Amino acid sequence: MNKICIIGVGLIGGSLARAVKEKNPATLMMGYARTDKNLKIAKKLGVLDDYSTDIQEAVSNSDLVVLATPVNAFETILENIKPFLGQKTVVTDVGSTKLNLIASAEKVFGSFPQFLIPAHPIAGKEKNGVEFSDANLFNGKRVVVTPEKNSDQNALDMVISLWEDIGAHVEVMSAIQHDSILGMTSHLPHMLAFNLVDYLMSQNKDAFNYAAGGFKDFSRIASSDHTMWRDICLNNANEITNHISGYIDNLENLSNMIKDHDSDGIDRLFLNAKQSRDNWLKKK
Amino acid sequence: MNKICIIGVGLIGGSLARAVKEKNPATLMMGYARTDKNLKIAKKLGVLDDYSTDIQEAVSNSDLVVLATPVNAFETILENIKPFLGQKTVVTDVGSTKLNLIASAEKVFGSFPQFLIPAHPIAGKEKNGVEFSDANLFNGKRVVVTPEKNSDQNALDMVISLWEDIGAHVEVMSAIQHDSILGMTSHLPHMLAFNLVDYLMSQNKDAFNYAAGGFKDFSRIASSDHTMWRDICLNNANEITNHISGYIDNLENLSNMIKDHDSDGIDRLFLNAKQSRDNWLKKK
Repeated sequence: MNKICIIGVGLIGGSLARAVKEKNPATLMMGYARTDKNLKIAKKLGVLDDYSTDIQEAVSNSDLVVLATPVNAFETILENIKPFLGQKTVVTDVGSTKLNLIASAEKVFGSFPQFLIPAHPIAGKEKNGVEFSDANLFNGKRVVVTPEKNSDQNALDMVISLWEDIGAHVEVMSAIQHDSILGMTSHLPHMLAFNLVDYLMSQNKDAFNYAAGGFKDFSRIASSDHTMWRDICLNNANEITNHISGYIDNLENLSNMIKDHDSDGIDRLFLNAKQSRDNWLKKK
Repeated sequence: MNKICIIGVGLIGGSLARAVKEKNPATLMMGYARTDKNLKIAKKLGVLDDYSTDIQEAVSNSDLVVLATPVNAFETILENIKPFLGQKTVVTDVGSTKLNLIASAEKVFGSFPQFLIPAHPIAGKEKNGVEFSDANLFNGKRVVVTPEKNSDQNALDMVISLWEDIGAHVEVMSAIQHDSILGMTSHLPHMLAFNLVDYLMSQNKDAFNYAAGGFKDFSRIASSDHTMWRDICLNNANEITNHISGYIDNLENLSNMIKDHDSDGIDRLFLNAKQSRDNWLKKK
């Protein structure tokens, strides 16, 4: 690839730029954002070769355009880049929700465009911003790619290669499958962590003083970027609220077991959970 | 102190023994358990000076007896040590729940004994067993001590010194306050973590494959000892189920905000949670 344009150069966009650049020094790594504050930092850090706050300049002649802004901005960005996409330009994204991108793309392009390949690298840090970008962020991590029925095979291959070349494991599934699974394994835990901190504060402002290591780890993800998570909520509202509801049913069962002093039932649930998590860690 | 007897030499009992021994090499560190398997390991590791599976031999002539078994065993142990306590022997514990110890002690001794000082070091690891014991486990950590109205001042002072000498910060509060606060900051997060793993497994056995760092941290405490946590549930059932119920109400509010696409409300909740946690981390 001669030119890749990253729209939104934060932790994820910046880490992708670094990783690709390491493997392919000849590729021109171009950045776009509405203002040049972060772009300047990114260039200074060597994350970008060049940048522009002019969308035409940034996108024109790109082989690949990567949407790496918060997911809520995708629709506007697709509108803005539409006039400047070349015949062979492939567009992809790194968003945490996929159905929403598909809906936005259908709205902007009339039908889902063959050249758009939705993708989601399952990696991150609780620290945001290009300053924390890391060429190894995706190494050994999973990337879910969710092509639609009419997706162009060459475009799909290009996006799969992009990630595999930098050490990621690519899995292909449908967008609805992605949003449901991630709603459960990623979005739900974030809701639980934000809600735990909120609940504790509502009960007792000094409660944190009596929190130990368990709380620290459990609540780490409550230090994640609030705007990004608000947007994920809004864009995967159905799946997230379904999982919250399922989680509450499960939690009420556990609460009833505790009320009933069902020693065996509690023990079995905790042991199963412990073993499942331990097995998962071993395989990781 | 000439002799300290630790009843149950696991992670917490073993770490306390190591820390006290480091500061007071002359104190005889005696261990008791029903079988000698872990005691042998503890002695080999230098955690104990001596051990016995005979409760009389272990307890007799001790200045201090520390109950460090799972909390469910406390009542039986109090029954068993009762005949062998000297006139000046102080008894304390390291259990995660305090009301239950008080109820057990009242049952065994007729009324709450002056020489029993309930205590709870807020520290731990997800790994259990004397093999993981660590003389620094309590350094800089909080220890809650919950004397009753009739507690002996000298006994209280002895237990406070025990912990302060090894670097812990002691706070005195009532047993009910302790159980309510810890039910919220420690027991509730454990319930949420065990329940998350249980819910995910019930939904999709492969879900864990799509879990990232956030899930790993969030669920770390689900790898805690299942028996210990079952006992904590049974011994703090009221406070835990109250907090589960409050947590669910809070979570339903969040779910409704997501359903209503209440962007500002979600943003405010997440930002408050993030700031509160970040501030707590800074002060730690």
